[in-house]
Amino acid sequence: MDLKEKTIKKEYVYQGLILNVRKDEAETADGQRVPREVVEHPGGVGIAMEDDEGKFFMVTQYRYAQEKVMTEYPAGKREAGEEPLLTAQREIIEETGYEGTDFFYLGQMAPTPAYDSEIIHLFYARQGEFRGQHLDADEDLNVSKMTLDEITAKIVSGEITDAKTIGMTFLVRAYKEGKYD
Amino acid sequence: MDLKEKTIKKEYVYQGLILNVRKDEAETADGQRVPREVVEHPGGVGIAMEDDEGKFFMVTQYRYAQEKVMTEYPAGKREAGEEPLLTAQREIIEETGYEGTDFFYLGQMAPTPAYDSEIIHLFYARQGEFRGQHLDADEDLNVSKMTLDEITAKIVSGEITDAKTIGMTFLVRAYKEGKYD
Repeated sequence: MDLKEKTIKKEYVYQGLILNVRKDEAETADGQRVPREVVEHPGGVGIAMEDDEGKFFMVTQYRYAQEKVMTEYPAGKREAGEEPLLTAQREIIEETGYEGTDFFYLGQMAPTPAYDSEIIHLFYARQGEFRGQHLDADEDLNVSKMTLDEITAKIVSGEITDAKTIGMTFLVRAYKEGKYD
Repeated sequence: MDLKEKTIKKEYVYQGLILNVRKDEAETADGQRVPREVVEHPGGVGIAMEDDEGKFFMVTQYRYAQEKVMTEYPAGKREAGEEPLLTAQREIIEETGYEGTDFFYLGQMAPTPAYDSEIIHLFYARQGEFRGQHLDADEDLNVSKMTLDEITAKIVSGEITDAKTIGMTFLVRAYKEGKYD
C-alpha cells in the first residue's frame, strides 16, 4: 500500500521561541484531503557519558510541561546549522562541566513522530577533562552519576520516564554487547 | 537545590485539533521570570503484542511531521477521560484487527518533556481472537510481525527511530528477563 501524503497547503498558526506550529492541509495516498498539525522543533542531542567506574552522568531538572522534576541523560537543543556532534560536545560540558571524549553515534530518535518534526541525535561518550559547567540563564539542574543497572532499575520502577533516557539505555547496552559492530 | 517552577501566567496561543500550545510566564526557584512554551497533548498508549511464535505486531505508516514512512508498535491517542488500559484494548483491535489478552503495564514514558505534556502508557499483551481492523478515516497503515531480535537489529541499524518503539523494546526485554518481579 502506498502511504505517502502530499502537502497541499502549509500554514503557520504559531511562531514561538523554541517551536513553531503549522496546521497544514495534506492529501493522503488514496486522495483524501486531511488536516495535519505539526510542531516544528530544531531537535537536539542526548549524551550518555560514562566515567572510569562505569557510572553515567545524569541531570535532574524541573520539566515545566510535565509539572515535575525529572532525571535524564544530559541533552540539549541544536543551534541553527550546527552539526549534532558539535552540539553534543558543547552541551555535555555546559551541563556537567566535563568534556566528553571518544564519542560514538548511537543513532537518531523521533520522540513523537505523530505530530512533531523533532529528531534527537544520540551519543555515547567517555568522561574527559573538567572544563567547568555553564548553564543557560534560565536553566537549573543537579548532576549525579549512576550505573546502567541503577538507571535500568529506575526505568522499570517508573522513576525515570524520559523517552530518550529509556531509549538510550537500550542503545548503550546494545553498544556494549557489540551489536553495532 | 530546589528546582520547582511556578506558573505566573498561563496563555493559550493555539487551540487545535489534536494539540494546544501555551506560552506561559513562569518563575524559577531562584526568582527569575522566564517564558515557557508548552504543547498540550492528551497522550496515549503503545502496545507490544506478541503472537504464539514470539513475533510482535508492528504498524508501518506515513508520519507527516517526519516526512517519511515509519515502523512502530501499534499506538493511539486517549479519548477524554479514558483509562489507558481501555485505550490499549481498543487501539490494538483497531490497528491490527486482533484482540489483546494478558495485558501487562510496562510503565509510562514522556516523549519530549522539555516542552510537551504528552505521556504514553506502555503495555505488553498476548495476541487474542481476530475481531477485524477498523482504522480512522484518515489513517492508512500496513501491519507486519517481527521478533524482538529483528526489531532490535532495525533499531541499531537506524531503520526504526520511533522513541516509544525503542523504549518499549527495552521494557519488553526487561519484562521477559523478570526485572518487573
